[in-house]
Amino acid sequence: MCETTDGSHQHVEVHRHVMEANDEIAGRLRRGFAARGILVLNLISAPGSGKTALLERTLGLLSPLRVSVLVGDVETERDAERLRRSGVPVAQIVTAGTCHLEAAMVESHLSEVDQRELDVLIVENVGNLVCPTAYDLGEDVKVVLLSTTEGEDKPLKYPAIFHRAAVAVLTKTDLAPHLDFDRALLRENIEAVHPGLPVLELSARTGDGIDAWLGWIRTKVQEKQGAYR
Amino acid sequence: MCETTDGSHQHVEVHRHVMEANDEIAGRLRRGFAARGILVLNLISAPGSGKTALLERTLGLLSPLRVSVLVGDVETERDAERLRRSGVPVAQIVTAGTCHLEAAMVESHLSEVDQRELDVLIVENVGNLVCPTAYDLGEDVKVVLLSTTEGEDKPLKYPAIFHRAAVAVLTKTDLAPHLDFDRALLRENIEAVHPGLPVLELSARTGDGIDAWLGWIRTKVQEKQGAYR
Repeated sequence: MCETTDGSHQHVEVHRHVMEANDEIAGRLRRGFAARGILVLNLISAPGSGKTALLERTLGLLSPLRVSVLVGDVETERDAERLRRSGVPVAQIVTAGTCHLEAAMVESHLSEVDQRELDVLIVENVGNLVCPTAYDLGEDVKVVLLSTTEGEDKPLKYPAIFHRAAVAVLTKTDLAPHLDFDRALLRENIEAVHPGLPVLELSARTGDGIDAWLGWIRTKVQEKQGAYR
Repeated sequence: MCETTDGSHQHVEVHRHVMEANDEIAGRLRRGFAARGILVLNLISAPGSGKTALLERTLGLLSPLRVSVLVGDVETERDAERLRRSGVPVAQIVTAGTCHLEAAMVESHLSEVDQRELDVLIVENVGNLVCPTAYDLGEDVKVVLLSTTEGEDKPLKYPAIFHRAAVAVLTKTDLAPHLDFDRALLRENIEAVHPGLPVLELSARTGDGIDAWLGWIRTKVQEKQGAYR
């Protein structure tokens, strides 16, 4: 919930209007993606968890799947510039201060992506574990990323995104030996918030676990295209 | 700016009302802290940057200064429980979904802290590099924390908090040898956003750099109490 605690009638009404307008656009996006058999992933994490690094490592390996990326940031086009080196089409959404992506931002940047030539659209949200959680972007799946360096308590402290995600990705596993990282405790905390949530563990730096991430995406594409084509 | 991009007249008006109400309370808080000579720090960072770990390491070392902590989280009282072990008074603010602290939350929890017996009040904000930036809590100083694992680009991608902070604390320096961390590039990026911003580098785990952090707080208290007492 990216909102103040002002509980005035007027404020509650405006907030409801904003969320309803977002949901309407998200519904329209979702129908369009479904008609084209495009799998849409909404990647959400804290700043610095390694969303862009994971995509840098994997975008070039998803062939023959056709992939594009919409990447959201408060400022700068740096992430889009990093991701374009992989050769896939990338559009940057600069939110200019707003702490999350909204469906209208995705819709207004879709023209930069050729949807006729697409199997997977990856939306990299603004680095923020709270606010992006509330905004439907028309995605099939929310993916929450958490790095080994952030602490095992994060699922308990930010339960909404772990509750709504369909998969959790634990990044920077190569750093675990240098931390007081308790893997069993993290898994226990995830399980407490979202029983049965699949967890993929990987390192974009060493490549460990990357195959399972690629396999997870391929399976999701098959499910989506099997259902709609 | 923790807001949607809905630019309707009604929405802009409500947002202005919320920020004006916050600023009014923050002003009242600031006058009260000034009258008592209490230095107030507002700690802001991404989730997992190590705000709580830094306080765990240092709260017990600030004696004879009298310190209390207000700690904000979306959910759980875990951080307050961790910090109470240091022996200083700690109050937990659970925002129940809200992505930042507001002046009204600080005001309503101040009764849990004995202001007559206080030199320093540390407010640990919700883990979020965007939204807490906009809300004045009556603090003297915003302190931005960034860990070595989060990437050197963060000052450029989240410029507002680096612009408004009076000091930056680089945490987890003990992990730098295990990362492709470019210290000079980070310092350059901070300098680009906020020329002259002091940067303290430390590791709460090894204790490196902790003395400089303690010294920085002591100096700020002297400045404050020299000005007001």
